Amino acid sequence: MNEKLAELKRRLLEIDDLNAATAVLNWDQTTYMPPGGAAARGRQLATLSQLAHEKFIDPEVGRLLEELRPYAESLPYDSDDASLIRVTQRQYDKSTKVPSALLGAFYEHSAAAYQAWTAARPANDFTAVQPYLEKTLDFSRQVANCFPGYDHIADPLIDFSDEGMKAETVRALFAELRAQLVPIVQAIVDQPVADNSCLLQTYPEADQLAFGQKVIRAYGFDFQRGRQDKTHHPFMTKFALGDIRITTRVKPNDLSEALFSTLHEAGHAMYEMGIKKDLDGTPLANGTSSGVHESQSRLWENLVGRSRPFWEHYYPELQAAFPDQLNGVSLDTFYRAINRVERSLIRTDADEVTYNLHVMIRFDLELALLEGSLAVKDLPDAWQARYQSDLGLQAPDNRDGVLQDVHWYGGFIGGAFQGYTLGNIMSAAFFDQARQAQPAVLDEMRQGEFATLHGWLKENIYQHGSKFTANELIERVTGGPLSIDPYIRYLRTKFGELYALA
Amino acid sequence: MNEKLAELKRRLLEIDDLNAATAVLNWDQTTYMPPGGAAARGRQLATLSQLAHEKFIDPEVGRLLEELRPYAESLPYDSDDASLIRVTQRQYDKSTKVPSALLGAFYEHSAAAYQAWTAARPANDFTAVQPYLEKTLDFSRQVANCFPGYDHIADPLIDFSDEGMKAETVRALFAELRAQLVPIVQAIVDQPVADNSCLLQTYPEADQLAFGQKVIRAYGFDFQRGRQDKTHHPFMTKFALGDIRITTRVKPNDLSEALFSTLHEAGHAMYEMGIKKDLDGTPLANGTSSGVHESQSRLWENLVGRSRPFWEHYYPELQAAFPDQLNGVSLDTFYRAINRVERSLIRTDADEVTYNLHVMIRFDLELALLEGSLAVKDLPDAWQARYQSDLGLQAPDNRDGVLQDVHWYGGFIGGAFQGYTLGNIMSAAFFDQARQAQPAVLDEMRQGEFATLHGWLKENIYQHGSKFTANELIERVTGGPLSIDPYIRYLRTKFGELYALA
Repeated sequence: MNEKLAELKRRLLEIDDLNAATAVLNWDQTTYMPPGGAAARGRQLATLSQLAHEKFIDPEVGRLLEELRPYAESLPYDSDDASLIRVTQRQYDKSTKVPSALLGAFYEHSAAAYQAWTAARPANDFTAVQPYLEKTLDFSRQVANCFPGYDHIADPLIDFSDEGMKAETVRALFAELRAQLVPIVQAIVDQPVADNSCLLQTYPEADQLAFGQKVIRAYGFDFQRGRQDKTHHPFMTKFALGDIRITTRVKPNDLSEALFSTLHEAGHAMYEMGIKKDLDGTPLANGTSSGVHESQSRLWENLVGRSRPFWEHYYPELQAAFPDQLNGVSLDTFYRAINRVERSLIRTDADEVTYNLHVMIRFDLELALLEGSLAVKDLPDAWQARYQSDLGLQAPDNRDGVLQDVHWYGGFIGGAFQGYTLGNIMSAAFFDQARQAQPAVLDEMRQGEFATLHGWLKENIYQHGSKFTANELIERVTGGPLSIDPYIRYLRTKFGELYALA
Repeated sequence: MNEKLAELKRRLLEIDDLNAATAVLNWDQTTYMPPGGAAARGRQLATLSQLAHEKFIDPEVGRLLEELRPYAESLPYDSDDASLIRVTQRQYDKSTKVPSALLGAFYEHSAAAYQAWTAARPANDFTAVQPYLEKTLDFSRQVANCFPGYDHIADPLIDFSDEGMKAETVRALFAELRAQLVPIVQAIVDQPVADNSCLLQTYPEADQLAFGQKVIRAYGFDFQRGRQDKTHHPFMTKFALGDIRITTRVKPNDLSEALFSTLHEAGHAMYEMGIKKDLDGTPLANGTSSGVHESQSRLWENLVGRSRPFWEHYYPELQAAFPDQLNGVSLDTFYRAINRVERSLIRTDADEVTYNLHVMIRFDLELALLEGSLAVKDLPDAWQARYQSDLGLQAPDNRDGVLQDVHWYGGFIGGAFQGYTLGNIMSAAFFDQARQAQPAVLDEMRQGEFATLHGWLKENIYQHGSKFTANELIERVTGGPLSIDPYIRYLRTKFGELYALA
């Protein structure tokens, strides 16, 4: 059995090396690559991905997994070996059930759809992308149908990013959340909007980056095992557990852009930096779902990084870094500015309270498209109707409406958005548990110290990598299924105080 | 035949993609990778190299080449297809003649030898590396013996980097060169050494980099298809003909370090940037030998970048960039400083005149070791004896003697050094031809313009990539075999004037 396991690990490590190389090439493409490198880079990435895919779907991998199953079942469920065999088996099934030809055809279409979108968005031309979206919807259904036996056609697509989550459970959870959120948003927007002009002064780039890096170093981001660079869209990527990179973008006239994207991406990075070293180079050395990943980015960005205790410590340091800009601005004014709530059209610009409304609109529209109750040609109208009902806003055009997000134009319709809101819900559920288990967490935040919180997260969440699905992890950590209560409580407390709500 | 050629090209492109990925990972390793990434990166690089090697030595590649030979022979020798088939066949023969197991064992040994050297050099401990070197010598002989029928045992090793060059021809050429060089060096060092204190002031890093980049942009380095970053050791690397990177290092107290390494690496880069686009992704899209490559780096670094016409234009610009440091320094003083000649112990610090003496010592010692006329244990004494006779110097210890260069400790003994001096000889031969064909070259240099020179080099050398071997290229460009005369003439004229030699 040891030889078979060693052979499986050898194969998985080779695949991991290819995937890591793909990640390095992607990172370089967005950070430093000169324009002339683009054409060859696209081809190089395709070659590496295809080699990794071919090696993973090799029938020999299936045979090894089959032969190793009795061994896995003889071990404790959460042991490294049992988890490796179990999780790899699930990924193998997913990878082999979709025919390579279908996947190849979809990738090719997807590249064309993305190209069409990059031209159609500035031109405000939905009709230009409509035929692409119709084909994307068709591909999405075909891929879902490779997994017969689902409850909802979106389930297999959701399963790619949030394994084990089902459309109906998520829909019910989101309905509950929307029912609670809409009145909170209404109560807040009836009041005067907070003044955020203190953030919109001139802040030199190098000083902005230095301050963000100082904070995440204090969080526990390990610069011996990571670094930060600049890109157009911030992201986190991993080349090995010892080399995890984040990126940010800097707006010289908006302090919040680089700072909060840095805290956000650092949260993603710290999750993966905290995975047990023994799992490096295996499919277990990843965050377990897009929801759990997002829970960590949002926890460090919002629950910590936009909290009052945090700024009680850091605001004087921020003032010292930017005396000309902030010496006349009180902590209170600054705290209100970074937590300003406002109904807006663009998801990525949305605040903590309204953000989920944007996500849930997209999730519902995805389901309607997949179910066939909404036709692609009617999508722009459906979008506008939902923005009107949920946010009381109408986009002046499709550019800031249905064309705003890349997701449907570069991937499947289905499974693309729910992780953002699941992550917000989980962030509060996990933070609640951490504070209950370690009451020192808040006091430490007031001192600019995060070791207890970080240690609790590593122990309870990070170290496991993807041993447990999101649902298994939530059950282990909170003792029950995912509940929106901690999140609603968090929002009510924080924004109730900020906006003196009833 | 078209299908077979297409299949060969498809395979070669996939291999090129893997090699490009390896190059990106190497580049990242030396530019930006955090320390924690080192272990996994070594493994990732090994995996990619091995995959590329396996795919290249696939017998199907051999069959395709065999079947395509009649087609190649029906085409003009210098056509793209004939050249691709011919050059790939030679590389295939080389790659398949050395058993993979032998190569694997050597790489493993080589990594250990390199590790031993990194500890032994600071400790000045030749005995620590002696057993490694003995094994390296044994491996080098074994690899050479995979190519029976050679005239000299070093020939197959030289052939890896300078294809078609033979130990005896190079030895004869070098003997001739040394006979001419030694008296020139003697005549110069009898005179007072030039004052280079103007270079050894404080020069801010960003300004140094900006000036170097301004010069290479004028040379014709295309920043749309390349970039410059910082590393401990400067180098050039290529990911595609549209993405060619150079690196440099900056010494805040020595202007010459970053500037001349920038011009040097830009020369390497411009060679590959000038290769005909149609050859991208094939084995032809590389410089043809280490000698020809070095001829281009040295041409742009020395024959252009340390010439008086060049500085007649650029010195006022340099003074404007560094007024505090240079406003009181005359062009003449500056020109003498950057061309200061001095006998020294370290090859990489050597000036244009003495540099080749360092190289030729190493070349002769390599041959003696391979021939068996010198034992590894006697290498330090042989080294000292040659430094005494050729340069009139004795290193105080092995650290600055036989332990100074990495080459023998991380690769074969044989073929490691001759390219540097071959490049110097060729640089003058090619520059002579360019000036004869285009008399405007020198006048343009005085105006800070290089289009005619660059155009001539592209037309006659760069565009061909590795279609022609070094010897074929020299014959095409100069009408005869490689001669040291232009190089000696160049040195005599330039340094004769600088040092008022007879």
